[in-house]
Amino acid sequence: MSTSLSDSALHVAVIGAGGYVGGELLRILAKHPAVAKITACSDSNADGTIAAVHPNLTGSLELKFVAVAEVTQADVVFFATPARVACTQAAKFLDAGSVVVDCSPDFRLQDLDTWAKWYGGEHPQPDLVTKAVYGLVEHNRDQLADAKLIAAPGCYATAIQLASIPVAKAMGDLEIIVAAASGTSGAGKKVAKSQLLLAEAGNNYSAYAVSGHRHGPEILQGLAEYAGVTAKLRFIPHLLAVPRGMFATVYFVAEKQLDLADILHQAYAAEVFGSVLAPETSPQLSHVLNSNRFVVGSSQSQQAVMCAIDNLGKGAAGQAVQAMNIACGCAETAGLT
Amino acid sequence: MSTSLSDSALHVAVIGAGGYVGGELLRILAKHPAVAKITACSDSNADGTIAAVHPNLTGSLELKFVAVAEVTQADVVFFATPARVACTQAAKFLDAGSVVVDCSPDFRLQDLDTWAKWYGGEHPQPDLVTKAVYGLVEHNRDQLADAKLIAAPGCYATAIQLASIPVAKAMGDLEIIVAAASGTSGAGKKVAKSQLLLAEAGNNYSAYAVSGHRHGPEILQGLAEYAGVTAKLRFIPHLLAVPRGMFATVYFVAEKQLDLADILHQAYAAEVFGSVLAPETSPQLSHVLNSNRFVVGSSQSQQAVMCAIDNLGKGAAGQAVQAMNIACGCAETAGLT
Amino acid sequence: MSTSLSDSALHVAVIGAGGYVGGELLRILAKHPAVAKITACSDSNADGTIAAVHPNLTGSLELKFVAVAEVTQADVVFFATPARVACTQAAKFLDAGSVVVDCSPDFRLQDLDTWAKWYGGEHPQPDLVTKAVYGLVEHNRDQLADAKLIAAPGCYATAIQLASIPVAKAMGDLEIIVAAASGTSGAGKKVAKSQLLLAEAGNNYSAYAVSGHRHGPEILQGLAEYAGVTAKLRFIPHLLAVPRGMFATVYFVAEKQLDLADILHQAYAAEVFGSVLAPETSPQLSHVLNSNRFVVGSSQSQQAVMCAIDNLGKGAAGQAVQAMNIACGCAETAGLT
Amino acid sequence: MSTSLSDSALHVAVIGAGGYVGGELLRILAKHPAVAKITACSDSNADGTIAAVHPNLTGSLELKFVAVAEVTQADVVFFATPARVACTQAAKFLDAGSVVVDCSPDFRLQDLDTWAKWYGGEHPQPDLVTKAVYGLVEHNRDQLADAKLIAAPGCYATAIQLASIPVAKAMGDLEIIVAAASGTSGAGKKVAKSQLLLAEAGNNYSAYAVSGHRHGPEILQGLAEYAGVTAKLRFIPHLLAVPRGMFATVYFVAEKQLDLADILHQAYAAEVFGSVLAPETSPQLSHVLNSNRFVVGSSQSQQAVMCAIDNLGKGAAGQAVQAMNIACGCAETAGLT
Repeated sequence: MSTSLSDSALHVAVIGAGGYVGGELLRILAKHPAVAKITACSDSNADGTIAAVHPNLTGSLELKFVAVAEVTQADVVFFATPARVACTQAAKFLDAGSVVVDCSPDFRLQDLDTWAKWYGGEHPQPDLVTKAVYGLVEHNRDQLADAKLIAAPGCYATAIQLASIPVAKAMGDLEIIVAAASGTSGAGKKVAKSQLLLAEAGNNYSAYAVSGHRHGPEILQGLAEYAGVTAKLRFIPHLLAVPRGMFATVYFVAEKQLDLADILHQAYAAEVFGSVLAPETSPQLSHVLNSNRFVVGSSQSQQAVMCAIDNLGKGAAGQAVQAMNIACGCAETAGLT
Repeated sequence: MSTSLSDSALHVAVIGAGGYVGGELLRILAKHPAVAKITACSDSNADGTIAAVHPNLTGSLELKFVAVAEVTQADVVFFATPARVACTQAAKFLDAGSVVVDCSPDFRLQDLDTWAKWYGGEHPQPDLVTKAVYGLVEHNRDQLADAKLIAAPGCYATAIQLASIPVAKAMGDLEIIVAAASGTSGAGKKVAKSQLLLAEAGNNYSAYAVSGHRHGPEILQGLAEYAGVTAKLRFIPHLLAVPRGMFATVYFVAEKQLDLADILHQAYAAEVFGSVLAPETSPQLSHVLNSNRFVVGSSQSQQAVMCAIDNLGKGAAGQAVQAMNIACGCAETAGLT
Repeated sequence: MSTSLSDSALHVAVIGAGGYVGGELLRILAKHPAVAKITACSDSNADGTIAAVHPNLTGSLELKFVAVAEVTQADVVFFATPARVACTQAAKFLDAGSVVVDCSPDFRLQDLDTWAKWYGGEHPQPDLVTKAVYGLVEHNRDQLADAKLIAAPGCYATAIQLASIPVAKAMGDLEIIVAAASGTSGAGKKVAKSQLLLAEAGNNYSAYAVSGHRHGPEILQGLAEYAGVTAKLRFIPHLLAVPRGMFATVYFVAEKQLDLADILHQAYAAEVFGSVLAPETSPQLSHVLNSNRFVVGSSQSQQAVMCAIDNLGKGAAGQAVQAMNIACGCAETAGLT
Repeated sequence: MSTSLSDSALHVAVIGAGGYVGGELLRILAKHPAVAKITACSDSNADGTIAAVHPNLTGSLELKFVAVAEVTQADVVFFATPARVACTQAAKFLDAGSVVVDCSPDFRLQDLDTWAKWYGGEHPQPDLVTKAVYGLVEHNRDQLADAKLIAAPGCYATAIQLASIPVAKAMGDLEIIVAAASGTSGAGKKVAKSQLLLAEAGNNYSAYAVSGHRHGPEILQGLAEYAGVTAKLRFIPHLLAVPRGMFATVYFVAEKQLDLADILHQAYAAEVFGSVLAPETSPQLSHVLNSNRFVVGSSQSQQAVMCAIDNLGKGAAGQAVQAMNIACGCAETAGLT
């Protein structure tokens, strides 16, 4: 289960391991040098083999799923669950000393009213929210070093914040206008909408959530926190006819026109998972698929920054493991290269 | 370069109009010169607009679905339903004088035991089975002229019979070995299997029903009826990462090696919906998508015939309308060119 | 539910008939009730069958390509050629009395300096430019009635103008910020870039022409002409992993916030090829593929309008035939429904 | 360039590094623990960055291509070139002491007349052919231990031999009837056929090389060598609308009907890169994409075996590295898990 040797020997549990983010977590953790044991939890798949649900793990993870109730102890517990699951279960794992990494939206928003509005009512564990550390590593690395409860960012929130935080920091208050697009795995597997069937999503493209997407408040919170600005945001997501990948095209509406390529270079040249393209060059999904990388490019004349990530990689499971690595004292790249 | 007008003014009902075959029937019938009125029946979509379910019909069919119970009379009734629906409802429409065209498997097999084995038990209307006329137009055109109850062939059965009947007729008893492949719309829309989601079916390809597909007996029945042979059949279907289209590669195992290209030419040169390619040329899905066409090609050295159809066109709705045209005295091509 | 017959019997030539727009013109014209004869010109495919190049025309257009030099006379001549071809050849056909419909950019821009900048130098026929009528039918229908030389709009220019002209007319001067996306057929077939191979474009998505796209000036010209506004434009196009289809997401940056759904309804409710969706609803490519339709939707809170077209349909061949219909006195919908 | 440490420190050159197989070799070798230095050779891309040609290597291989002439010495030289390149260049590298691994067809066929017939005339280095060791590891592992010149198998030849050698060994002389399918990367990148553009290959499926594929003789040679049988073969390849992946459906025509699942289990249960599915189960491309794995399944009633591989992985670059590992004394799985 490991390639090079590590002193640490973590027992990691993944709750919601039958979904797309859960499967990606398993794929990464199976090769992670510090992970000694994986428990894959999925009530709906309990006792089934992992390979039957995640064919790509055939031969690399010969485990069976277990019911969530069977997980009593683990060094790290990942939640790859829908909203309102982690917030009710995190406490017991935290009390038992686990590091909890939540890939769901339950601990992302510090404003509880906003959370209640977007995620179905009052938050059941408001105290925990204040303890959660936001897992956007490149902009919050220091806070993560001591984290016990990590709120892994949303996929759109990751791409859009990576594209806009450095620019906003330089520009000050501004309006950000975003068109972003995601592969269909972003909608999950339980959502039995016929629009996600290949027979309908193939050859198709459309916008959705056109009145406002729930990652909007998360982006504004990050722009305030990491760029120190009050921003306005317009953001419409779109559905791509591809299984995975995410792309954000971010326009800046402001008085100043700054050198965007230079700003990006200053911000990310030293980042191990980031690449800044030459000016006037676009990232592609093919730069980042199946990886934890993010690639940014810019257009000076359009005052726009584009960012590509894998929605299941840097947009979810990859970034969650990157944050875990920091919290657990592993090399930041462990399991991710 | 235009279609001619018809005096007839048919009222046509489509039961199961919310599915993929139902949607294709609506698309064809909306442009059919002899169709004056369409009733689109779908209990699960009743009162909803057709365009909401079939976006491609936006602007061309501004109707709402009605509940099945509301259909009391129609000149023609199409069933685009799962197995075991048409067989329980056809009688009342036949009694009322409608022509019934069943796109489901309910009236395809004359052997009732075989039907019971593949389709969930005893047939509820055995008398009707004997009255049903099989709608493989190119090989059963004469019988269709008087038909009141038409059993539209299965999609695989269409492609494989079109590829093999002329050859079998010339060769005599033989074994037929088939690898065929279908777009994902062939699995329907109600089947909420995650394997049909773009996130899983995209980039994928696999065989399925590897122990035997229910269209097997239908093919053997057709080879006996239209080619006069007793055939052995091995047939494995595969799932393509495309929304629609169907392709059959049919190998003949027999003593004789006949000139396959010539046999196909003799059989289909005069067929308005058929194209026979030059020897040693393969059909493509792009020859037939969104049409009622079938295209066949052959390899002499491999003793193989390949056939491409659109699974929703010639493999379902198109052929059903072609059969209706004959039964109702319309031009065979009406609505289909 | 049928198309009416027309007395006229046009001889139509398509120059550049081997490309994707040319193929779509052939597909439409083959079913056009007023077209009696089609000449498909392609020097690189001369004497080859049309079906070999356009498999989807198998069985519906059993012609061979001819060399361009062989076209001496035709009632209508379509150019589906790269830039700088039509502008050198149009004169002779106009002199011979043909109606010329140019699907290339040669006659779209009235400002010759701008044209020279984007399309490779000085225009060879500046006099003809002033005579050309811009073929954006819904906003220039009256001018087209007498047109002898029609400049069919660019695909992006069509989608973006349809989305923005009615809004700009109501808002006055404004900035328009656009993210748009096209299927790969928009890049044509001659462009042998490996990025367009399925092996690379499949699963991919990226922006391109990020420093400015050549349809930009065409859009600004249209906004001035048909909306009477001076606009600023930021526009980044993207490449979708689908063969065809085009989608524009258009944000309006202005003082006023107007009721976008109402504005669209006023503008397009009566348009036979247009559909205005309910407020806060997005169009989809599946609304428009293989058709001449355009579908628009809006988000009031984002102050955005979205428009879907088929880049080869309303974005090229379909709109060109629609314009021809008006110029030649046919029903506007002839061949297009 | 390595994760865990290795004693060996190989300098590896890849000739033809700009193509799809070359790119996959670079991807694997960049993570290979025994590889200390990579030289990526591509005359047509010389001095260009690797990431510009292979976007997926962004951030993991910050090299430039060099011209082939610049490679003078390397421990291992891979050829990922079209036919008739390696056979003219291998000698000089072998003389200099390099291990040569040829992913092209130049050293696969021991019968020189057959090679000449399929690959454009007389072989320029017949002596080397006799020294080449065929790289189908699971059936020729022992021979590879001392290999200096390795002929990596063709992609179809890999999938079909893996599916059929164990069965043929048990059955004796027989006929094998195969329908196989490949993603479009199998056709390479230099082949500028418009059929490989996403605009044409998307939504499509067809057979090709229907009169016989050049991997046919290679398969028969392997069945003789590793199964000891004289076989007849019919084999038609098909083109899938996916970037990568390969699938073979292999029917056995023989007197005996043996327990196929058991035969496969006996043959491959101990293979680190192989998986044998439960009886009557099909492999999927998703089992094997981006890996060196092969997955086999069987249908007893159809007497068929199905095999899935990644055409660029086990079908080319992966298997080539697996063979190199054995020849160079590395762990067989090094770089491949």
